[in-house]
Amino acid sequence: MPKKLTPRDKDYSKWYNEIVINADLAENSSVRGCMVIKPYGYSIWEKMQYELDKMFKMTGHQNAYFPLFVPKSLFEAEEKNAEGFAKECAVVTHYRLKNDENNKGKLMVDPNAKLDEELVVRPTSEAVIWNTYKSWIQSYRDLPLLINQWANVVRWEMRTRLFLRTSEFLWQEGHTAHSTKEEALKEAKLMNQVYAEFVENFMAIPVIQGTKSVSERFAGAEETYCIEALMQDGKALQAGTSHFLGQNFAKAFDVKFTTNSGKLDYVWATSWGVSTRLIGALIMTHSDDKGLVLPPNLAPYQVVIIPIYKDSNERKYVEKIAEDLMFKLQSQNIRVKYDNRDKFKPGFKFNEYELKGVPIRLVIGPKDVNDGTVEIVRRDNFSKETVKQNEIFKEIRARLNEIQNTLYLKAKRFQEQNTTYVDNYKDFKETLNNKGGFIAAHWDGTNFTEEAIKKETKATIRCIPLDSKEEKGSCIYSGNPSNKRVLFAKSY
Amino acid sequence: MPKKLTPRDKDYSKWYNEIVINADLAENSSVRGCMVIKPYGYSIWEKMQYELDKMFKMTGHQNAYFPLFVPKSLFEAEEKNAEGFAKECAVVTHYRLKNDENNKGKLMVDPNAKLDEELVVRPTSEAVIWNTYKSWIQSYRDLPLLINQWANVVRWEMRTRLFLRTSEFLWQEGHTAHSTKEEALKEAKLMNQVYAEFVENFMAIPVIQGTKSVSERFAGAEETYCIEALMQDGKALQAGTSHFLGQNFAKAFDVKFTTNSGKLDYVWATSWGVSTRLIGALIMTHSDDKGLVLPPNLAPYQVVIIPIYKDSNERKYVEKIAEDLMFKLQSQNIRVKYDNRDKFKPGFKFNEYELKGVPIRLVIGPKDVNDGTVEIVRRDNFSKETVKQNEIFKEIRARLNEIQNTLYLKAKRFQEQNTTYVDNYKDFKETLNNKGGFIAAHWDGTNFTEEAIKKETKATIRCIPLDSKEEKGSCIYSGNPSNKRVLFAKSY
Repeated sequence: MPKKLTPRDKDYSKWYNEIVINADLAENSSVRGCMVIKPYGYSIWEKMQYELDKMFKMTGHQNAYFPLFVPKSLFEAEEKNAEGFAKECAVVTHYRLKNDENNKGKLMVDPNAKLDEELVVRPTSEAVIWNTYKSWIQSYRDLPLLINQWANVVRWEMRTRLFLRTSEFLWQEGHTAHSTKEEALKEAKLMNQVYAEFVENFMAIPVIQGTKSVSERFAGAEETYCIEALMQDGKALQAGTSHFLGQNFAKAFDVKFTTNSGKLDYVWATSWGVSTRLIGALIMTHSDDKGLVLPPNLAPYQVVIIPIYKDSNERKYVEKIAEDLMFKLQSQNIRVKYDNRDKFKPGFKFNEYELKGVPIRLVIGPKDVNDGTVEIVRRDNFSKETVKQNEIFKEIRARLNEIQNTLYLKAKRFQEQNTTYVDNYKDFKETLNNKGGFIAAHWDGTNFTEEAIKKETKATIRCIPLDSKEEKGSCIYSGNPSNKRVLFAKSY
Repeated sequence: MPKKLTPRDKDYSKWYNEIVINADLAENSSVRGCMVIKPYGYSIWEKMQYELDKMFKMTGHQNAYFPLFVPKSLFEAEEKNAEGFAKECAVVTHYRLKNDENNKGKLMVDPNAKLDEELVVRPTSEAVIWNTYKSWIQSYRDLPLLINQWANVVRWEMRTRLFLRTSEFLWQEGHTAHSTKEEALKEAKLMNQVYAEFVENFMAIPVIQGTKSVSERFAGAEETYCIEALMQDGKALQAGTSHFLGQNFAKAFDVKFTTNSGKLDYVWATSWGVSTRLIGALIMTHSDDKGLVLPPNLAPYQVVIIPIYKDSNERKYVEKIAEDLMFKLQSQNIRVKYDNRDKFKPGFKFNEYELKGVPIRLVIGPKDVNDGTVEIVRRDNFSKETVKQNEIFKEIRARLNEIQNTLYLKAKRFQEQNTTYVDNYKDFKETLNNKGGFIAAHWDGTNFTEEAIKKETKATIRCIPLDSKEEKGSCIYSGNPSNKRVLFAKSY
């Protein structure tokens, strides 16, 4: 039975957790920090995978699969990368359990089955992949190598939140190899652009494309491109990253190639990824106090049909039309759920599908049967209208497009309204505390200033926007000269 | 450069490994027993996933995702299951690495980051799933629960072979919950049937459906259904299993439900899975001494188009037609690769696509341009024919169907010719040594006899076929009465 959610303005974090649980998206598992993704939540991930995978393939990438485990000696080869992830690694040390002699029916780790070398459960796969690429790449003819992997990864987290930060999560990680720096940079930017297009067009979430400051870069990268989104509580969320890795991994794993002109050079690399964290962004961007709001382009069901009747006679007529409508919409590739369960009242169903964020509710009762009509209710703004049954496809298609656009525009307006330009530290702190959101401010480019601001305010540099204009100014903290604004925010 | 394979009759096992490596399907990784699935091999797995996933959804199942790790205390809850897998478990004992003070640039397991409870990397997910189902199931209204998961699992293997037996592998595992024994049994049989249909219709591999003897059952199951296939070397391969788990896991995890009549009862369970091992079966069933032979229904490319020309003028005309043909076929959903690489000779390409098993090679040269023709060569039997360009779709579609059918029928004939009925132990041993294949023989039903035969001959009972006829006979080993034949074989 759907229960009322805690309103957003009362406790945003509680509201978020309640949506995840009550809309049947995911739950915490018996394993610390790991979640169970429930069928409804997983079906959103499947839609995301399907669309992203198409985009990756259209840009020339192929999928492959690399091992879950990284031997410690490989893991530590690229020192910065290793240092960045060492503190959150799950480590396999043994390969067998045995009966516990002192504890009947229980098992214990068999001390005789200790591995010679410990295996790290991949927190990311650069190490194992570049160790493999070593034998795949000899000549410029073998390049570019454009590979993606759909996989689970583990980063041991102390404070976890469903979808946003879990010890195990699902993601895709692209790993490409190139013969020139320019080509690798172009790839890193391209994939960041692909992410931006996916998130904007399918998830209806506007994003800012930018680069990370040095301290926020991926461990082992020379440049990290990112897309940053703004949630309804005014906190930013990093939705995807794409890294230009330079020749760091090629050097760590000794991956050289013969160039066109016969010389030997190290290979240039990128890696890029998005994860089930995107589902967290989706929830937090569009949903309201009644529950989830899903953009039609990713909704497992775009339309739910609910029949209304008082007796079995009415039921017969209503269901006949309801089924016709279902088949009509399905034949046009609209994802429809027909809920003809008799044991639940229509009101109960209305609540359930509002909670689950189905974009359109289509209600049909005895009067509609007579009139050749049907009632359409939009989830995003609850607008109701009565439309002709024989125009159902056209109407639904139009409404779905409208909802998709409306959600994007609403989020875009929110982002704009919550992006504040400030020119001194006092305004910066005031804006951060009273309004939140993105703060566009001048920064002197030093790690020192960045750390000081972070320590004093908890705000971090989310990105240096790609479209940030050249503009003379002075750093809000140090007063030193700066030539462009960067985006600060508190973040997830 | 494709090199010649070791012929099957010289060294079948070497031939198999060479195909896997040379056709770019997979390779061993730096992690003991774990493989890298290369893009070409992975694209076959993607096709398999796509088709199986459709079949699972059509039979009412939904996908979800459960954690990679199983806490030891959950793992050991169902004792038989735990006992069955304890000896091959990778175990996570620590959650952090730290700098090794005595070894600059190296990392070591941080002894202060020892887990209170060890985590088993899932060898299969019954434990973690049934522990979750406990909170999902209260009433008969929550049943049946029909869930599938696509995941990686780890079973620590001492002797590994690419695809056939690796420490980590990819699979799907269905886990369903039911209110009655009959319904669970029906589900276990249905999914075995789904596997049989997939393997026969898409992989073109004939299978025998049957049940396992008690000793060969899945650990924790009350009945294991399976599909068994016969490889070209006369050894059997278990291609998929579907288990009726009774109430074993419900009891171990205390999963009860309120029945229709208000009583409390334990839930009935099934689980079922197929894995990347299927790719091994695919290779070993159809391939020949020239390389891989892929059934069109699963081939990443069904057709490769290779242009032939002597100079750039010829090239222009040939490529124009070749591209037209490519678009024509692609528009009809035929998967086409157009290989217009200029740096490789046609003969080199012919070898390459023979090695990679592309079902149809379509060759077009200057004479074809004039005549409005194209040459079609089938990979399965190397038959050549010249067909009209304007009939290309019809011809290709027909050839693809023929190849798919021919591969199945050839494998079926092989299976029939290599299934021998024997009535005494002498003939049994002779057949096993001289001919191999399936041996249909009477067995007294005891574990003692089964073990003795296994020890003496290495043959195991592959299954008790579902369609095995009632027939009076006596056990080939003990002479005791038996009422049906079972299938013995050496196996992978």
